[in-house]
Amino acid sequence: MISHDEVRDWDATDPLAPFRDRFALPEGLIYLDGNSLGALPRQTAARLKRVVEQEWGESLIRSWNDADWVDAPRRVGAKIARMIGAHEDEVVVADSTSVCLFKLLMAAAVTREGAILAEDDNFPTDAHVAGRAAELLDREYRPVPRARIAEALTEDVAAAVLTHVDYRTARRHDMAALNAKGVPIVWDLSHSVGAVPLDLKRDGAILAVGCGYKFLNGGPGAPAFLYVARDWQPRLDSPIAGWWGHKAPFDFSCSFEPAADIGRFLSGTPAMLGLLALESGVDLMLEADAALRWEKAVRLHDLFAARMAELCPTLERVTPDEAQERGSHIAFRHPNALAIVRALIERNVIGDFRTPDIARFGLTPLTLRFEDVWNATQIISEVIASEAWREARFQSGGPVT
Amino acid sequence: MISHDEVRDWDATDPLAPFRDRFALPEGLIYLDGNSLGALPRQTAARLKRVVEQEWGESLIRSWNDADWVDAPRRVGAKIARMIGAHEDEVVVADSTSVCLFKLLMAAAVTREGAILAEDDNFPTDAHVAGRAAELLDREYRPVPRARIAEALTEDVAAAVLTHVDYRTARRHDMAALNAKGVPIVWDLSHSVGAVPLDLKRDGAILAVGCGYKFLNGGPGAPAFLYVARDWQPRLDSPIAGWWGHKAPFDFSCSFEPAADIGRFLSGTPAMLGLLALESGVDLMLEADAALRWEKAVRLHDLFAARMAELCPTLERVTPDEAQERGSHIAFRHPNALAIVRALIERNVIGDFRTPDIARFGLTPLTLRFEDVWNATQIISEVIASEAWREARFQSGGPVT
Repeated sequence: MISHDEVRDWDATDPLAPFRDRFALPEGLIYLDGNSLGALPRQTAARLKRVVEQEWGESLIRSWNDADWVDAPRRVGAKIARMIGAHEDEVVVADSTSVCLFKLLMAAAVTREGAILAEDDNFPTDAHVAGRAAELLDREYRPVPRARIAEALTEDVAAAVLTHVDYRTARRHDMAALNAKGVPIVWDLSHSVGAVPLDLKRDGAILAVGCGYKFLNGGPGAPAFLYVARDWQPRLDSPIAGWWGHKAPFDFSCSFEPAADIGRFLSGTPAMLGLLALESGVDLMLEADAALRWEKAVRLHDLFAARMAELCPTLERVTPDEAQERGSHIAFRHPNALAIVRALIERNVIGDFRTPDIARFGLTPLTLRFEDVWNATQIISEVIASEAWREARFQSGGPVT
Repeated sequence: MISHDEVRDWDATDPLAPFRDRFALPEGLIYLDGNSLGALPRQTAARLKRVVEQEWGESLIRSWNDADWVDAPRRVGAKIARMIGAHEDEVVVADSTSVCLFKLLMAAAVTREGAILAEDDNFPTDAHVAGRAAELLDREYRPVPRARIAEALTEDVAAAVLTHVDYRTARRHDMAALNAKGVPIVWDLSHSVGAVPLDLKRDGAILAVGCGYKFLNGGPGAPAFLYVARDWQPRLDSPIAGWWGHKAPFDFSCSFEPAADIGRFLSGTPAMLGLLALESGVDLMLEADAALRWEKAVRLHDLFAARMAELCPTLERVTPDEAQERGSHIAFRHPNALAIVRALIERNVIGDFRTPDIARFGLTPLTLRFEDVWNATQIISEVIASEAWREARFQSGGPVT
């Protein structure tokens, strides 16, 4: 039994506590959906105002050079590289997660014969991209249950798409063990980056993509990033050759010569507003010690789990017990999960629902207090015990991945 | 000989003159690059502040429904449809121009046998995308000079990419005549939309893409749009299947069933900041009568041309004499075009340079006064006559298409 006073003490001594004020969080709201749309860093509002009014409004086209817009995809990529254990020249920011996945999967698959492998119950975009890529390349599309991926990474697989942290259960793959199988894997880090410890070089990853609008707090529809290990860069061609991937875009040559570096995976003109908002979110994240962030994420999960076990002992938690086997959210199974999540939103506790029966709550150590978890679990248990969710009217949630 | 007083009178009676104050233009600058990065509409700065601080910061994930973010790609598409003579359900906003081009070209090319045709001296991204698409589909890549496109649209061409208004010469294709050849053409409207009269239905266009950050004033790296004629929508599959193109994204099904409508060409989560900035620019553009816009654009060009013919009679203009044969910029050939453009930037006249020898000036009727053209041509002629460009130091321009 953990007391309210006890968790308040934890907050009082939490070295990350000062970060909460760096975000513009509405009063009275317990926001447990930062794994779907990260909160607004205060500095991002100021940065975007400057980008819009000065860089765009005043300097206009000159900002491509004068405000260094032109280098932003690589510059922000280099910052993300520091968060995922990559070299700074191995990451670039571009497009959406779906488009980045398509680029790397297509590029990798053409380097060898064989099937395209994916998880059979993954976040849908990964399956959709992989299935269509297989069609385009006239390869077998091979969906496999997550639990049987290790044995399925065989010689006759050309490339695989795997999601490091599952979007429902938060179950985390053993990246090093799976990379060791020798099949080129495109890792989807959408629920990992900014959430769990990552060391792509140590773990032998050669390809990865990730989402900018979840734990990185890049804003709605922020651009994604892609990672290609140095020695793989010259061997891979983006299927979408565009002028930003050219080695000299401003020569305006119609003959395509890809950039020698990670920039070869760029296509069109970068989405500058989203990219600079993402940079601001990444800058803030880099101020916080990664080990402290993960340590607090684990404690937030375990507090949440302990409280729910105490208050709602019959509720089934689907997230793994062991910290090293999971990401940074907690999820429960309930036949009325959708109605429960809606009832919680009415009570200012924002989580989300995932079909068919998952109530999911993101645990973001820079914005959440232990007391928030204490209060949220109180409200969740009351909603479930009173069946208050039967009256839930409020429709919300939306495209939250 | 047109006098300064005369052009001032034109401005005094210009029905579009009030629009200039709707943009945040720096004092003293003559901005002739709105065809590369459109100016900032004042309402966009206010709109983005609201999007960031309220929709993202306060409402957070709920804005996908409550602020109708979820419908934005179709909603803004429908608005653009009104500017290009398309039905409202034929346009959607997505990705970058390069990625949209890739999607439509790949989708069209697989519907029939044959080569992929492109212009041999087009804006490079069009050639790059087409060439790589031909490689992926194992088709012949056939680049053809712009002047010989009509005769090259033969039965053995699977699909073509053509740019409606050339980025250097502003020469405009006869869209109706080329569509009548029966080859599926993906029209690149980047230098047309918001600039010249467009009537895609009348002209028999089935596929098109366009840029959001030029004449539409959508901001740096604004998302692009794509158009697919109604009867072609069910026949085409996007090569990049992603969850936003699914008929029910929030069912989270791993089995891909494309949306029945134009939304099937979406892939990843839309770039919301850029998309809503674009909407604001499109809204402003829709307030101005399209016929008046084009009429003024023609007069701006002809004033510019007449002044340069008078002041620099030896300078070669490359834009067509006939208004219906061109877009909304003016361009000149000079061996020192780059240095001249730089010297002009130092003198607060912003145009741009295009290899090998083109000085290009965008003519945007909502932001430019006739007097601006009068003054700009004066300064250009002085720079050329005095060879002041020999001292030009300022490096600028950047990725301006």
